[in-house]
Parts: sequence; structure tokens; C-alpha cells
Amino acid sequence: MKRIFTFVLALTFAAGLGAQELSNFAFWGQKPIISPEIQNDSVIFRLKADYATVVKLNGSWMENPWVGTIDMKRGENCVWEVKIPLPEPEIYTYHFVVDGVVVNDPQNVLVQRDGTRYLPMLIVPGERTENYVEATQHGSVSHPWYTSKILGMDRRLTVYTPYGYENNPKKKYPVLYLLHGAGGDEEAWISMGRTAQILDNLIEKGLAEPMIVVMPNGNPGQAAARTLNIPEKPYDWRDPANRDLYVQSLCTEIVPFIEKNFRAIAKPASRAIAGLSMGGGHTISASILHPEMFDYICPLSAAGNMTPEQVATLKKAGVKLYFLACGNTDFLFQNAEEMHAKLVEQGLEHEYFVSEGGHVWSNWRLYLNTFARKLFK
Amino acid sequence: MKRIFTFVLALTFAAGLGAQELSNFAFWGQKPIISPEIQNDSVIFRLKADYATVVKLNGSWMENPWVGTIDMKRGENCVWEVKIPLPEPEIYTYHFVVDGVVVNDPQNVLVQRDGTRYLPMLIVPGERTENYVEATQHGSVSHPWYTSKILGMDRRLTVYTPYGYENNPKKKYPVLYLLHGAGGDEEAWISMGRTAQILDNLIEKGLAEPMIVVMPNGNPGQAAARTLNIPEKPYDWRDPANRDLYVQSLCTEIVPFIEKNFRAIAKPASRAIAGLSMGGGHTISASILHPEMFDYICPLSAAGNMTPEQVATLKKAGVKLYFLACGNTDFLFQNAEEMHAKLVEQGLEHEYFVSEGGHVWSNWRLYLNTFARKLFK
Repeated sequence: MKRIFTFVLALTFAAGLGAQELSNFAFWGQKPIISPEIQNDSVIFRLKADYATVVKLNGSWMENPWVGTIDMKRGENCVWEVKIPLPEPEIYTYHFVVDGVVVNDPQNVLVQRDGTRYLPMLIVPGERTENYVEATQHGSVSHPWYTSKILGMDRRLTVYTPYGYENNPKKKYPVLYLLHGAGGDEEAWISMGRTAQILDNLIEKGLAEPMIVVMPNGNPGQAAARTLNIPEKPYDWRDPANRDLYVQSLCTEIVPFIEKNFRAIAKPASRAIAGLSMGGGHTISASILHPEMFDYICPLSAAGNMTPEQVATLKKAGVKLYFLACGNTDFLFQNAEEMHAKLVEQGLEHEYFVSEGGHVWSNWRLYLNTFARKLFK
Repeated sequence: MKRIFTFVLALTFAAGLGAQELSNFAFWGQKPIISPEIQNDSVIFRLKADYATVVKLNGSWMENPWVGTIDMKRGENCVWEVKIPLPEPEIYTYHFVVDGVVVNDPQNVLVQRDGTRYLPMLIVPGERTENYVEATQHGSVSHPWYTSKILGMDRRLTVYTPYGYENNPKKKYPVLYLLHGAGGDEEAWISMGRTAQILDNLIEKGLAEPMIVVMPNGNPGQAAARTLNIPEKPYDWRDPANRDLYVQSLCTEIVPFIEKNFRAIAKPASRAIAGLSMGGGHTISASILHPEMFDYICPLSAAGNMTPEQVATLKKAGVKLYFLACGNTDFLFQNAEEMHAKLVEQGLEHEYFVSEGGHVWSNWRLYLNTFARKLFK
């Protein structure tokens, strides 16, 4: 009954505001619920759940976030609460489990999208995350569509242009092509990877060159993220005729599209390519198929490898930076070790960056925050 | 236990895919859950909720969506289900209520954002909604930031450029400035208003002129949507010194920014302004403060009014289309009636478009789908 009353109140209030444009707000006479709330070395999560029997919290800081859960306790006004020690500085995602059903935190405005799931974020401040939050000066993010003859459809891109792009109409910029992994899409690096925030901060602090960042969709059957609900084209990746179709679209369609429609410097020394997991494989394939195209190559937690001959060809073509990164508990770590050995063997100068942990976004943000400083210098 | 087992399975599977990039997918050996599923004249909603006691459905097609709820019934494998008659063609939003807590539909990829809430959508096909779904040819959506000296901050815009913009580098386009209501932000018209889909469809069918659409943030204290979590600037709207600050920023900062950075035709005959609710008020204010600037003026369910003198001045400045729209049960309907009477009285030719219903997005989509065909012709 109380809940119904609250909703009637909300409706009355809404009528004066624009009924369908309501944000979460505190109802009159009720203490606003704050969640998550960081207090010194702790963080408190809260959820109002009037009729729930069991409410739990699940977060990506946990040893095994898929299995473990933390019990929440019912307090005043049916607000369930739990206080836990603050995890190390990083961006975490979490959710509540109310009587067995996954529920997002309605009080938290910070949300990332993973595929078709929306996940509330906890950003723990610290040196590790200082470039993951909003800078003062913002670059622009756009979603242009390019026509792919190779894949037979119009496809959506995400493009970041740095702060100042609009006010310096004669200036041309270098370009980083930044590729996602399996299960991702053209918004993965923006949403989970915090690319705009990382680049904004690095550029504002003078730690990275102002650059354009292009984030394509790496799934050859998809026109755009699944959230647009455009039917996918069947794509048989086992058919040899389909091999490298996306990478060819990237190198022979996307790169020219960007260099025509944005103020990009169209030279190998001003082109970088980086990608995680499947996108790391795409990065390696692009460097094999078009060894002259990119002077900066960064496979991250990559699925993919090269023959000694391919490494030699790439070395001959000239590389300004080869940045190979992987987590030391990543299921692809052995692959990275082999790549590293091959590069050493063939004498291709490179940086081998091994971090703690596995195949996760905390590592991919760290890698971007690291190698973006080394590009185009 | 079963749930835990499922998650362990998911984790194992995830390891091969890119652990943090998982979309919703059917687990092995389980029938995929489809929700919502339209079957002829019905629609079925489904939610897996293993330990829930009461599961209900709430939707915007209901007479009173804030109060009424529909009971769902627990079926095989704890999948709760309800089948209801298909509502009239329109875009609806809905949610589940599990033991008193609001839960989104994890199976539905179609989601709109209202403030900081994410709402699953039900799109019922029909003539009413045929321009609300993805067209074949897509315009691009971008988020540039402009510097507002008037409001003392950099602010984010949403800009739609029509299909073909990139491939016709000499072509210039007319511009529609499209304003949201209180509680909205620079993404409201894109997310709830389906602006990109409506314009894509109208342009593809030859029913509207290719145009640029600019959607600013109409809250003077906000740099961008609250989802970016940028601290807001205190803004006292009762202070007379603050009056019309946003509208002045729109007319003297945003319009020049767009005309400099996009291929816009910088003439009154190629500028339109439209807005809903508070944005309808902004539309009226802009036409009072800068009567020469826009030849197309469309206040929708507008909060705001004009004096007879202001109407006379506007008439003298020249208007190609004045499109006044309101729902017949809107709490601002009386205001629209008075505006209409005033325009008649002063002999300002206009179209008075009265629709069924109230202060809701179904009307605002209908208005855009209607007046966009009449612009720049």
C-alpha cells in the first residue's frame, strides 16, 4: 500500500514536470537513499525492497564474482544495506540479487553497457583511476556509418575526436584504431573501456598527443551494436572465403572513410592499431595483411599469432612501437609469451607489458592508459 | 544451487569468449527465454525468477501505469509468464515488479533511457510506428561539446546528420533545433523520441528534406546528461538575471557553433525550432528574443505564451510554418488553446494540431513524425 501511495505521489509530481521525463528523485518527506556511498575505507550499498526475503550484493571486486554473494541486511523503511571494505582503486561493476533475481542499483547514475546488459559502476578513487573519470575538457564522440562493400552493409563506427578539434579547423590529427573483443561492439571501448575519459585526461595533462580514436564493430555479421536490433547477417567464420573479411574492411574501407571524413593525417607514422582479445587477433592480422599501414601496433590479451616470416616482413616495413600486453593469469598468457619469444627471435624491437590479473577490462583500461602516451611521438 | 551451477557454466564459457564481454545468451540445454514475444493479437512477457513470491508486470499502455499491475504466473523452470492482448501500435515501456522491486527485462535488447532510468521497450508494429524502427539508410549521431560563455561551461550537444552527409561533401543542409522538456537532457529526443529513426525513415521515403537535427541540453546548470556524473552548477531560475540564459546560449552560441562546424545553411529559411513542454517554452522564448532567426517554429505541449505585441512582431519578421501541437488531455492543453486564440486574433497563419492523449512521448514522436515533413519545403 505504501508503495502504491508513493507512486501516486510521484504521478502528481510528475504532472508538473513532464510525466515521462522523470529521473530518480527523493520523494517528499523521505530521506534520499544514497548508493553506493564511499566513506573513508568503506563503501555502503543500499536498496529499498519492501517485500523482499533475501537481498544480496555481487561485485566484480570479489574473488569469484559469479558465485560469491554478500548478504545485505534489512533496515529502516525496508532499505537493505551492507558496508564492505573499500576495494583497491579500480572501476568495478556490481548488482543486487533480490530473491534470486538480478537487479540494478536505481540510485547509481554511473552505468556501463556490456552487450545488452546495463551494469552499475563503482569507481574507487586513486592513482589507478584518476584518468578514468571526467576531465575538464571533453573530446566529441560520434557514430558515423560507413558503407562496406566487403561485408555487404552499412556499418556503425564510434569516433572520438579530441578537445579542440572544432576550434582548430586547419589542424590534422593522427588516428588510433581501437578494436574490441568477442561479445563486444563499437561502443565497448567507450562504455567499459572509458576511452573518452582516458584520452581527455591524458591530452589535457599533456601526456598524450591529441588524436582521433576510431572504434569499429568487429563482428562481421553485425551492422551495429545489438541494442539497435538490426537483424544480423549469417556469417560462417569457418568458410575460408570469409577469412579476414572484417580486417580487410577495416584496412581498405574504414581507414579511407576516416581519412576522407575527418581531419586525419594519412601516413603510416600517424596510424596506430590496438585491440583486445579477438581485436588483438584483428590487430595482428592487419599487421600481416598490410604491414606498411600502421607504424604503431598494440595487441592486448590477444588471440592470434604470427609466423617468423611474417614478423620479418613487418620488421622490414618499419615499426615505431610494438606494444604487446597481457595479464599474467590470462587464459591467453601462453600465447603472449610465444609472441614475445618470436619477436625477440626475429629481433623486432617491442615492449612486453605483463600486468597482474586476467582477461578483464581493468587490464584493458590500464593498457590504453599506458600505450596511448607512447603514440605519435 | 542450480543458479550457482548455471553461473559456473557461464564462467567457463566466458573464459573462451572474453570474460567481461558477455551478452545475454541461452545457456546450454536450456530453452532460450523470449520476452516480449508478439503472437498475432497478443504479447507474452517472461521472466526467470527462481525464488520470487510475487511477480507483476507494469506497462505504459495501462490506463494508470503507476498504480495498476498485471499478475504473472510461475511456470516451468521458474519462468514467470503473462499473456495480454496486444495494445494499439505504439512504443511502450514496461518493467517487472519482483517481490516489490522494479526489475528490467533481461531478454529485451530494446531499451530507452529516461533521466537515469533504463526502460525496456515494446514496439507494437503498425502504421503509427512504421517510422519509429530502424530504416535501411542511417544518419550519423554525434556528441560535440560547445563552449558557453553565457552559462560558464562546456556543454554537450547531440547532432544528427542525415544519410549521405559524408558522401556529399559540398552539400549544405537546413537545421532543426529540437528541444527537450524538464527532466530531459541532450539524449531525450534520440532515446525516447526516436529522432534518428523518424528522420532516417522520412528522408529515405522522400517524405522529408534531408536535414541536420540539433538537440542541446536545456537545463542551464547541466554540462551534459546526468549519466556523465558531472557536478551541476547551482542555477536559481527565480533570479531575473538568469532569465532566458539558456535560450540566449542557444541562439547566440549553439546556432553559430553548428553553422561553423557542420555544413549548415545559415539562413532563417533553413532554420527550424521545435520543443516539447519546457522546450516548447524555450521555442516560444527564442521566437520572441530572435524573431528573425527561425522561419519554422513548432511549440509542442508547450509551457509558455506570448503577448499580442510579440505575436505581431513575429508575424512581421516572417514565418513559413507555425506548428502548434498539444494533446487534448494534456495538463497544458488550456495553454495551447490560448496560444491558438492569440495567433488567430493577430492573424498569424498557423497549424493547430490537437491529438488524443496527454503529456507523453507517444504524442511527441507523433508530432515530430508530422511536422518534420513540412519543414524547408
